[in-house]
Amino acid sequence: MRNQINYRVIYGDTDCGQVMYYANYFRLFEIGRTELIRSAGITYKDIEEKYNIILPVVEAFAKYKASAKYDDLLTIETFIKELKTHKITFEYQILKEGRLLVEGYTVHVPINREGKIVKFPEEIYKILKTLEKKG
Amino acid sequence: MRNQINYRVIYGDTDCGQVMYYANYFRLFEIGRTELIRSAGITYKDIEEKYNIILPVVEAFAKYKASAKYDDLLTIETFIKELKTHKITFEYQILKEGRLLVEGYTVHVPINREGKIVKFPEEIYKILKTLEKKG
Amino acid sequence: MRNQINYRVIYGDTDCGQVMYYANYFRLFEIGRTELIRSAGITYKDIEEKYNIILPVVEAFAKYKASAKYDDLLTIETFIKELKTHKITFEYQILKEGRLLVEGYTVHVPINREGKIVKFPEEIYKILKTLEKKG
Amino acid sequence: MRNQINYRVIYGDTDCGQVMYYANYFRLFEIGRTELIRSAGITYKDIEEKYNIILPVVEAFAKYKASAKYDDLLTIETFIKELKTHKITFEYQILKEGRLLVEGYTVHVPINREGKIVKFPEEIYKILKTLEKKG
Repeated sequence: MRNQINYRVIYGDTDCGQVMYYANYFRLFEIGRTELIRSAGITYKDIEEKYNIILPVVEAFAKYKASAKYDDLLTIETFIKELKTHKITFEYQILKEGRLLVEGYTVHVPINREGKIVKFPEEIYKILKTLEKKG
Repeated sequence: MRNQINYRVIYGDTDCGQVMYYANYFRLFEIGRTELIRSAGITYKDIEEKYNIILPVVEAFAKYKASAKYDDLLTIETFIKELKTHKITFEYQILKEGRLLVEGYTVHVPINREGKIVKFPEEIYKILKTLEKKG
Repeated sequence: MRNQINYRVIYGDTDCGQVMYYANYFRLFEIGRTELIRSAGITYKDIEEKYNIILPVVEAFAKYKASAKYDDLLTIETFIKELKTHKITFEYQILKEGRLLVEGYTVHVPINREGKIVKFPEEIYKILKTLEKKG
Repeated sequence: MRNQINYRVIYGDTDCGQVMYYANYFRLFEIGRTELIRSAGITYKDIEEKYNIILPVVEAFAKYKASAKYDDLLTIETFIKELKTHKITFEYQILKEGRLLVEGYTVHVPINREGKIVKFPEEIYKILKTLEKKG
């Protein structure tokens, strides 16, 4: 499944090059994956609080093709690129009026409270699998 | 005592108005008060970890007179404006080559782990009092 | 007129104190005033581009009563506190489920391309006056 | 040449996961490349203002091995991985007391005022080449 959510660029997102600061697209990526998970009926907060695992980012990548500017209304598109028992990869596209500006991915691993990499809890894995499949 | 610390403005601090984004001066204020406390031989981290209190901001104010720009080397000057048993006020000046750009203050109260306002632990109070006095 | 817009707190807004970082509420204030102006049929971007004036912040203040946390759905309420020919004051309230967390204000002055304080262009002043009146 | 510069983690850099927010390492990368260039006797600001080119990021990547925490004193190490006539790749390592926490790279291309990719001005290219060679 592909989740879409809009985001309006504020002054605070931009830099003196008159475009969105390159690091801030990773904030948009966070919004994207959070809302993708929410669309499956759970929240990232639930995953943390009910299942006692966190999903830290182990890799992050962005490719910048064109610039988002102040007051642009962007669309963040997010989908699950790959789900394994110990790893998940989200892919992102940032678009403006249908035109691709930035794309990227983040890789996350499930970690328990002791900081050890663990398998996704079965219930979480099933839900994420559904998101992956819906295409 | 007045603490001085330098800060170099990066692209990520600025906005499309070509100046430092107004909210980011509060990051500089944080640097200022952290280094002022460190100059007295304790750290804000110690206060949290050894004395089990935190010092959340209850008020924050900034007055903007002139703009910091990309790559400017700023000086953050911080001092304690007022110290009471249940409250501390830090005052800040952001300067560029001796010229005042922004000034402001933050008010903090000591809170224990249960979220209740408490007196400063005596040892902390004494140290902060020293900072206040030195002028 | 009072503008209301929702904002979902992300990881990137919070700090290791487990709450929204104090400086980031000023990002919410920016969202608030931008959307208040948009609700009157103009945009802040228009003011800059068509009227060649900018509205830099000259004062900013926030009073923190309670903390916004990760994944909270906040409401940003914004209204014009005072409009004069050379100055405008916006007031903000950040609420969670009707409960006031943070309130504050920002003061702005119209500046022309040469950096001089000017009167609001008449057309802009009229529109802002409408916002002020509607209560 | 490898440039080293220290960075103290502030509250504003961290998130509610108690570690530095993943996007903020890209701010450290910016500090790293800016100071590497400055160490060669020019500034990024000079490149923009005197040579009328900018160096936008076209790719950014980070690999997170361990977490930076509040008040950590980090070292940002930066060097030029590859310099071509139309492209430059910076590589970064973020360390804490000699231990590698995060590494990554950014790719930049020289763009002129019309937004066209151009060759590096010869003088700039020579200076960057010196940085690359010194190992």
